[in-house]
Amino acid sequence: MLTLFQHPMLPSCRFIRLAFGENGEELELIEETPWSRRKEFLALNPAGSLPVLLAEGDVSIVGATVIAEYLDETRGILKRDRRLLAENPMDRAEIRRLVDWYLVKLDSEVTRHLVRERVFKPMMPPELGGGSPDSTAIRTARANIKQHMKYTNWLAGSRNWLAGPRLTYADLAAAASLSVLDYLGEVDWRENNAARDWYARVKSRPSFRSLLNDRVRGISPATHYADLDF
Amino acid sequence: MLTLFQHPMLPSCRFIRLAFGENGEELELIEETPWSRRKEFLALNPAGSLPVLLAEGDVSIVGATVIAEYLDETRGILKRDRRLLAENPMDRAEIRRLVDWYLVKLDSEVTRHLVRERVFKPMMPPELGGGSPDSTAIRTARANIKQHMKYTNWLAGSRNWLAGPRLTYADLAAAASLSVLDYLGEVDWRENNAARDWYARVKSRPSFRSLLNDRVRGISPATHYADLDF
Repeated sequence: MLTLFQHPMLPSCRFIRLAFGENGEELELIEETPWSRRKEFLALNPAGSLPVLLAEGDVSIVGATVIAEYLDETRGILKRDRRLLAENPMDRAEIRRLVDWYLVKLDSEVTRHLVRERVFKPMMPPELGGGSPDSTAIRTARANIKQHMKYTNWLAGSRNWLAGPRLTYADLAAAASLSVLDYLGEVDWRENNAARDWYARVKSRPSFRSLLNDRVRGISPATHYADLDF
Repeated sequence: MLTLFQHPMLPSCRFIRLAFGENGEELELIEETPWSRRKEFLALNPAGSLPVLLAEGDVSIVGATVIAEYLDETRGILKRDRRLLAENPMDRAEIRRLVDWYLVKLDSEVTRHLVRERVFKPMMPPELGGGSPDSTAIRTARANIKQHMKYTNWLAGSRNWLAGPRLTYADLAAAASLSVLDYLGEVDWRENNAARDWYARVKSRPSFRSLLNDRVRGISPATHYADLDF
């Protein structure tokens, strides 16, 4: 079994857990606090970022999209119609564009700010930036989320899955990100029916179960978080 | 000829120009100001980010790493020992890790701040965030660059090219990033001889020529910028 260094409140880490889950492969999870910069962990990844996969031969594969490509090249390629990347280069580009949208754009406009202010800061020592949440950062992130929900709703309403006819990495990256926000009760599903129906479909997949069991210290999930019929 | 929407002071755009250049393929360049959010451009990429490639059939391929993967899948795969990604999944992961290092980590710690403060803000209208540079942001970025130069120097000193025995996307992403910083006179090459020798090798490749001719309004490049023997 391969090992994943991860944190349950990072979308990029949840994305990789879902990707391996869809490939029917279990991972040993090691929780790493993103700000601790442990020496042993920096030896695996000098950038200190998550996730890191300890792959075959204990070689470290660093970063969510890099791990996803590795997974596709070593396993996905044999999966035929259950492959999480398409066969055609143009379709692959569309999937990758959406993975970037959720793991980079949504993250930098919304997710990372809410997670930092609401989850990490209360746990972090003051000398590393811990302390009380910055309400301006929270307000800005909350304003930004609306546009992303509208876009997700549009994608979900115009395609069967977010990138086209099949479940792909795009769905996993989007659902991983929204699941973190949903844990924090930050997603308003009411005005986005197509997005809700799509999320309910992803959420009820077996690969999602371990995410729904995640808990972080001091913050209970929103009441509907693990509810498949929300 | 394919078309690239780009800005000369963005490392991600320079990276793609180098990658096509190494593939012996010319691109039509359209300069896009990153903050203008032109309606026609948003139709190609709703994220509004650069670079965007108009590929075969005028399909837009969005984002530097997505374009690089597309280029590898449609052209690189036929290039044998001139391929810019390795054949082996582990080696490919190392190349992608370094592309991320320069286009994401160096960018978010150094490059984007210096470019925003020194190049974009003086050009931007005040209502979009233009104005005088933030000296704290500049100082922080300048402090951060040292660590990245040390790491680049270590990579260049312990391998023939940054990711191993061959020129790869890792070298192009690193050189694209450092070339923007070098234009702005922000790179101290004196203490990093291995990095300088490596950069001189990349800089003298024909694919680099068009970058060395880039000029932006109001800012002349550092005197040694286009000098192959700096």
